[in-house]
Amino acid sequence: MTSYDDGNIFAKILRGEIPSLKLYEDDTAIAVMDIMPQSKGHCLVIPKAPSRNLLDADDATLAAVMPIVARLARAVRTAFNADGVRIAQFNEESAGQTVFHLHFHVVPAYEGVSLAPHAGGSATPAELEKQAEQIRAALG
Amino acid sequence: MTSYDDGNIFAKILRGEIPSLKLYEDDTAIAVMDIMPQSKGHCLVIPKAPSRNLLDADDATLAAVMPIVARLARAVRTAFNADGVRIAQFNEESAGQTVFHLHFHVVPAYEGVSLAPHAGGSATPAELEKQAEQIRAALG
Repeated sequence: MTSYDDGNIFAKILRGEIPSLKLYEDDTAIAVMDIMPQSKGHCLVIPKAPSRNLLDADDATLAAVMPIVARLARAVRTAFNADGVRIAQFNEESAGQTVFHLHFHVVPAYEGVSLAPHAGGSATPAELEKQAEQIRAALG
Repeated sequence: MTSYDDGNIFAKILRGEIPSLKLYEDDTAIAVMDIMPQSKGHCLVIPKAPSRNLLDADDATLAAVMPIVARLARAVRTAFNADGVRIAQFNEESAGQTVFHLHFHVVPAYEGVSLAPHAGGSATPAELEKQAEQIRAALG
């Protein structure tokens, strides 16, 4: 496994070098909209601590981030009246990882609606901003 | 969302009423082989605390279980020289949940090998027992 490279897009978002649609932030993590959503409301929870993925993450980060993932899962369910929520976390390219900074996908599920492929969906900036506002409202 | 029903198969495994291929156990969770694996070494981490899924789980359980998920992810990578690992956690039927007790899928990924469908794979008891022994060895 390759080591952590801080030139990845999530490290740049965490440093404020590139914009994101931020939903939540605390000392542990940020949550942002996924710009290639698999479903309406697909968002990401990104720990601030640098790690490539779950395989090299420290236990304290993992313990702190999971309640945040659950909080976002509840918020997207509320915001969009989703029927369910998938959590996905990919480690290494063969498992579908495309950005090499640990992150958790929070993907709302809707009955009768198939998911778009991972990193294959699309939504307009206006749609994403509207969804972000709905999630922020649900987070309270 | 329906409330927790302790007649589910994972509750029965936790109570010892039905057998499982156990890989790990501590005060927080057990890890067992998935008997319908999506890939070689597919296993499950099941918290002992009763919750239907992530949406009604308490933060303490989530914080305690995620380092165990990471530990299993590292073990399956080591045991089978996997190229990657997918973590998946499904909430409600529309998201793919089939057993209504919180659990995390740890699914090894191998380059060039597609995953079997969720809850659609198969492996013989002998294959599963051999894989379980390899994971236990990797857990140390």
